[in-house]
Amino acid sequence: MPASKKKSSSKKDEIQQSKSPAEFFAENQSIAGFDNAGKSLYTTIRELIENSLDACESVNILPEIKVTIEEMSQDQFNVMRGVPTGGKKSKKEDQPAVMDGKDNKKSAKGTTKQKRNTEAYFNIKVRDNGCGMAHDAIPDLLGRVLSGSKYGVRQTRGKFGLGAKMALIWSKKSTGEPVKIKTSHVKGVRGGGGGSIFNDTTGERKIGTKVSTCTLDIDIYKNCPRVMEHSQKANTEGWIGTEMEVLVAGNWTTYKSRVVQYLQQLAIITPYARLEMEYSNRSDAKKTMKLQFERRSEQMPAQAREVKHHPSSVNNLLIQQLLERTKSTTLLKFLTSDLSGITPSVGKKLIERLGNAFDEDMGPEELDDKQVTRLVQLLRSTDDLFKNPDGGCLSPLGEYNLNLGIKKVVEPDIIVTCRDKVGAYEGHPFIVEAAVSLGGKDAKEGINVVRFANRIPLLFEGGADVATRTANSKIKWSSYKIDHKKDKIGVFVSIVSTKVPFKVRWFVGKLV
Amino acid sequence: MPASKKKSSSKKDEIQQSKSPAEFFAENQSIAGFDNAGKSLYTTIRELIENSLDACESVNILPEIKVTIEEMSQDQFNVMRGVPTGGKKSKKEDQPAVMDGKDNKKSAKGTTKQKRNTEAYFNIKVRDNGCGMAHDAIPDLLGRVLSGSKYGVRQTRGKFGLGAKMALIWSKKSTGEPVKIKTSHVKGVRGGGGGSIFNDTTGERKIGTKVSTCTLDIDIYKNCPRVMEHSQKANTEGWIGTEMEVLVAGNWTTYKSRVVQYLQQLAIITPYARLEMEYSNRSDAKKTMKLQFERRSEQMPAQAREVKHHPSSVNNLLIQQLLERTKSTTLLKFLTSDLSGITPSVGKKLIERLGNAFDEDMGPEELDDKQVTRLVQLLRSTDDLFKNPDGGCLSPLGEYNLNLGIKKVVEPDIIVTCRDKVGAYEGHPFIVEAAVSLGGKDAKEGINVVRFANRIPLLFEGGADVATRTANSKIKWSSYKIDHKKDKIGVFVSIVSTKVPFKVRWFVGKLV
Repeated sequence: MPASKKKSSSKKDEIQQSKSPAEFFAENQSIAGFDNAGKSLYTTIRELIENSLDACESVNILPEIKVTIEEMSQDQFNVMRGVPTGGKKSKKEDQPAVMDGKDNKKSAKGTTKQKRNTEAYFNIKVRDNGCGMAHDAIPDLLGRVLSGSKYGVRQTRGKFGLGAKMALIWSKKSTGEPVKIKTSHVKGVRGGGGGSIFNDTTGERKIGTKVSTCTLDIDIYKNCPRVMEHSQKANTEGWIGTEMEVLVAGNWTTYKSRVVQYLQQLAIITPYARLEMEYSNRSDAKKTMKLQFERRSEQMPAQAREVKHHPSSVNNLLIQQLLERTKSTTLLKFLTSDLSGITPSVGKKLIERLGNAFDEDMGPEELDDKQVTRLVQLLRSTDDLFKNPDGGCLSPLGEYNLNLGIKKVVEPDIIVTCRDKVGAYEGHPFIVEAAVSLGGKDAKEGINVVRFANRIPLLFEGGADVATRTANSKIKWSSYKIDHKKDKIGVFVSIVSTKVPFKVRWFVGKLV
Repeated sequence: MPASKKKSSSKKDEIQQSKSPAEFFAENQSIAGFDNAGKSLYTTIRELIENSLDACESVNILPEIKVTIEEMSQDQFNVMRGVPTGGKKSKKEDQPAVMDGKDNKKSAKGTTKQKRNTEAYFNIKVRDNGCGMAHDAIPDLLGRVLSGSKYGVRQTRGKFGLGAKMALIWSKKSTGEPVKIKTSHVKGVRGGGGGSIFNDTTGERKIGTKVSTCTLDIDIYKNCPRVMEHSQKANTEGWIGTEMEVLVAGNWTTYKSRVVQYLQQLAIITPYARLEMEYSNRSDAKKTMKLQFERRSEQMPAQAREVKHHPSSVNNLLIQQLLERTKSTTLLKFLTSDLSGITPSVGKKLIERLGNAFDEDMGPEELDDKQVTRLVQLLRSTDDLFKNPDGGCLSPLGEYNLNLGIKKVVEPDIIVTCRDKVGAYEGHPFIVEAAVSLGGKDAKEGINVVRFANRIPLLFEGGADVATRTANSKIKWSSYKIDHKKDKIGVFVSIVSTKVPFKVRWFVGKLV
């Protein structure tokens, strides 16, 4: 029987099948901050903003970012997107409960039963003046999870490099709608090495000759982009940067304050950016809300350089990978060229310590598994030969900017800032910058801790972190004649590192 | 020039390359609880134990699990595994700092500089009396991340189904050593459907005729098993169950108390299991430690059934997937067969409400994207037609067992238990069971909250969770004549659900 045959073969397929990375993240989206509709709305917005900041900073452009959030009801969404509803067949008493803001209120009064679906729909646009995306690269940059490659070590904003891809997945899950991109790119700036976005002689910004538009979503099971439209035309309007547009479900009521808080804190840690946010509601013009943070500094932090791995941060897997991919022809050259902070003389000493199973002229491919283990042990335990990883690969904000950022947003009476020297944790360099402020127009009484990791605000999971604990119980505020209950105290702590572990609070816990 | 040509093509490869899921988790292992060497040791142990519990419960066998942890120094590890060290070339003053327990102490006294590498090595064996693994399935079950498929909904212990695979990755990273498996499997029990591990007539447990052994690790970049040895022989010793052996780096000093705490709490929530743990240290026989929890109940919780998705839990992606994979030929049949809780009459009502773009006889493949959106909206917002998801797919411990578990481990003076009725959160059913105890031989004064999710202890990220907050501030202990500071109060809260979000405390926060 063909039917049963088909069944058994599909059963077999299922068992052997491997989930795609996109599928995994679609099922476990809370890993990336997409816990529920409200949080997903918030995370979508911040991922797009952080992408935009990266796109500006990567080419040394002072960021100008505009965020537009338009809320609409299910009915409005359906009309806009042509979703078929209602019709002759449905009887009045069988009408589904429509879930826009107004009807919701009514039904909440009219019935004691809690409505399940209080989600609304949001059209989110984020526009920047950054480097843009190369036309051909757009689909893969957005429609493939875990694409791209990064074999060096660099300070990056994102946690897993998922960025906008998770927004695509959330949009696909919650509304089924694709995302739209409009972008203009100056050749040779990004992904191609060399070149500058500024004209060598005039110093003016170059403007891309073409504008690309692309509409796409993601095939979750194949983990590849599904492109609906992808075209290019002459850049007659002088368009620069990128605009991303997504349509997602969400909940503004519960996460509005988080979005505002995020933007305020982002304005503190990014005083060289101009940030603008506009929220509107199709059902109620009175709910329109605007936030604007002007640029307060023209000085951008130096870009984070990509560096090689520090010897004390290696593990078996990494060394195996580096040995496989190296272009060095001898072990000595491998040590000095493929890791950071190893001079030829240190390299020779290391090889001596490795013992007589090793030779400086042996080829990297000659090392067997046990020799790799030995090499890793030596690199990790040696503490008299290597310099600490240097902070050149880090991009802290700087005290000058931190001061201006706090001044701009908090408007306090006094600010003091400080920066610690570069530290290292398991071979990963880090820098801590901090500030304390007193007073401020809208500041709350008591101790207000604001935390940043790699220059993004940490809004969640505070309280048990070391910054909060230190501020609350280790600092004797009274010895500075400060009343920690009545005075308006701002405590700002920013850490930048090539590796901020997933749970930042544990990491920060190690620092003290 | 061939050299530069090679370079540019490899550059291109890099850009287009997509990371394998195994690579992603190797780089972001803290997602799965492998934050550092100490925590990784702890998580390795618990993942293997939980796999063993699953292997027993899936065939209704009362679990007997034995964990052996042997700590060794780097030198001892190197001798055992044949890692080449030392030799004629190395001079005395150039000897690398050896990092076993003893030398560590010495060097800590002798120098003010903090030693980087305080990791030791651990040989971990976990043995169970469960269903075993089919010979041919072993490599894929262990050496492929995100393999396997689960399209229904079921209560499961693990967070992401990564289980032992992360232990493989950690072993590969930290020691470069493969894992070893010894297992005996009774055909037709697991993965093959039908059959029972018990003899139909005698009721005795069947014993597999063969024993499989397998030594393997994982190719991180290809995400596939790398098998070194895989053989089968006659089961002459009457071997049953599975033994997994891994060699990992770790830190017992910092995580010993967590391992003990985990086992104590696991003994509470799994009173029908016999758990045994033995720790030994090759350098110091006095450090040997044994823990044993005898079985206190013969009654196992009913197995969690796999069920279909509840209509109020769907999203666009899921419905699209179900429509693509369904064997139903009409929309009506799809609704009644591929989702839970929809009778034919409810199905007909739904199709009426969908409007005139829909028809009960239309094929599932005929629905376009917009129709899918409409269907999802209706399913999610309908609250008058579906029954709440039923708890048949859940496997709570039961008050009888919870009582015995607490009695066995805590030995308190009084225990009261209770179970709430089945609730639902976004279409996912859940059950909360709780107990309060007073007194106990080793109990601490004050309120001690112990939390479980899907019958595994939650040791981390407590404090801000709703169970702790409720116990600390919502319950008026004094009205029960209990002194919440001096009395020894145990508060035990267990939640089981088909979906426990990654951050359990947010989820639990919704319940009250």
